[in-house]
Amino acid sequence: MDIINRYRCFDGEQQFYRHTSQVTGVPMQFGLYLPPQALAGQACPLVMFLAGLTCNEETFAIKAHAQQTAATLGLILLTPDTSPRGEAVAVGDYWDIGQGAGFYLDATQAPWQPHFQMERYLLNELLPQVRQQHAVTSISIMGHSMGGHGALTLGLRHSQQFAALSAIAPICAPMDCPWGQKAFRHYLGDDQAQWADHDATRLISQPGKAGQFDLILIDQGRQDQFLGDGSADKPHQLLPERFEQACQQAGQPLILRWHAGYDHGYYFIQSVITDHLYFHHQRHMQQCAAT
Amino acid sequence: MDIINRYRCFDGEQQFYRHTSQVTGVPMQFGLYLPPQALAGQACPLVMFLAGLTCNEETFAIKAHAQQTAATLGLILLTPDTSPRGEAVAVGDYWDIGQGAGFYLDATQAPWQPHFQMERYLLNELLPQVRQQHAVTSISIMGHSMGGHGALTLGLRHSQQFAALSAIAPICAPMDCPWGQKAFRHYLGDDQAQWADHDATRLISQPGKAGQFDLILIDQGRQDQFLGDGSADKPHQLLPERFEQACQQAGQPLILRWHAGYDHGYYFIQSVITDHLYFHHQRHMQQCAAT
Repeated sequence: MDIINRYRCFDGEQQFYRHTSQVTGVPMQFGLYLPPQALAGQACPLVMFLAGLTCNEETFAIKAHAQQTAATLGLILLTPDTSPRGEAVAVGDYWDIGQGAGFYLDATQAPWQPHFQMERYLLNELLPQVRQQHAVTSISIMGHSMGGHGALTLGLRHSQQFAALSAIAPICAPMDCPWGQKAFRHYLGDDQAQWADHDATRLISQPGKAGQFDLILIDQGRQDQFLGDGSADKPHQLLPERFEQACQQAGQPLILRWHAGYDHGYYFIQSVITDHLYFHHQRHMQQCAAT
Repeated sequence: MDIINRYRCFDGEQQFYRHTSQVTGVPMQFGLYLPPQALAGQACPLVMFLAGLTCNEETFAIKAHAQQTAATLGLILLTPDTSPRGEAVAVGDYWDIGQGAGFYLDATQAPWQPHFQMERYLLNELLPQVRQQHAVTSISIMGHSMGGHGALTLGLRHSQQFAALSAIAPICAPMDCPWGQKAFRHYLGDDQAQWADHDATRLISQPGKAGQFDLILIDQGRQDQFLGDGSADKPHQLLPERFEQACQQAGQPLILRWHAGYDHGYYFIQSVITDHLYFHHQRHMQQCAAT
């Protein structure tokens, strides 16, 4: 695990690493913000943030304005890349597939299968390696857009591993939107029976598939260009109402907050990130108190 | 003045504009953050932030994490571009001269003279136009690196126009560093008598050249790669000690804060930007109370 950049930030340190991944078969990069409490040797909770299409491990660190609150609360922020990359890795026909668009699942289809193994990479390799290097009390998960899909699906599939789950403008029902359908067809093949385990709305609708959280927090801007109007030009890509309905039917408590005037980008994320970090921090503290 | 992008942010709006400039002769772009108080029609103080080499009107808006505090305090943030740009505009031989490197002065030399008129552009055109469009109570100035040089020199040369002056890692003595010497030779010619009016340390040392401020705030990271060690590879580009000494001799109050571990970039800027905005806000309020 090589550190490639480190920057003092709010008396903590924003770091960027490159490490060899057995799971994806190529070097992967990630960002890690260590708050001053962690630099002083204290064990801290860790929030993993999964980023959206076209983003990389730097995007959240540069644009989300999360470090100040993380420093206040003593939260480690882990920001993985959104896919494997490099000359050995297949390239998609557009920015919604392939490099920068890994969709946080394990591909079973060529040409994606050997490298696009993001679920196993995050859970079986990256998180354990980070815990080996740093004293982490507990882990929680959040994400934006495609990363919101990743947070919801990985959170629900592996709920026992996460102290909290939240998302900002997530892709909530990928089987019912063009981004998700394209990604699932490429990565998982045509058999839609394989798709439902990677669709947050389907997961929560099927008994026994999803774990429970005391509460899930989702923030969504009303001017988000990817909410769409259902036309061919502007398809519904996010569909938060479907996830909300599924949560109601499944008895999963959810706060879905709609924000007038806000769009899909990082000016929205920075406006709500502090709320999310407090939401996560409270649940880390509850878990810490309970154990 | 055309608005090219607008984003809701902390209940205010981050806007980007393009306008025709008579002074530079080419279209110029700038960013404007309007806090919720301004959107509600209230007159607000304005802080103009001048950015460093290679930056543009978006850099501060994306990376400095200033909007949250600006929304809290009711400050408008104005972020000009760092130079004229486009096919009509001369290109330099490196990133420290020409487009992205206007040094906030009025060039007298070919090929720069017709377009590189950043001092007149900012003071005689941009600020008056912004004041025509928005209710502004008072204006203050700050900047980073080359923009710190711009803030110090424009602030000292036109002190009656500004309620406050501060800088982060500014180029303090451009006549004594390679960046400044190259820029002044290109933009102002070989006659060094023309240079001193654009060197903050010289300005404050010459009686009658610089206006007074109740206090100037400068933040400087100790790990800043451009502090240099005086070698050919790592020249001293910033020289804050010279400005500090000149301020002491001239009776200009200055706080120069040194920050262990911090470098030259925006992870440093975001760590101190809130202090700067409170510093400016306090002086805007004092000026408002006095008039």
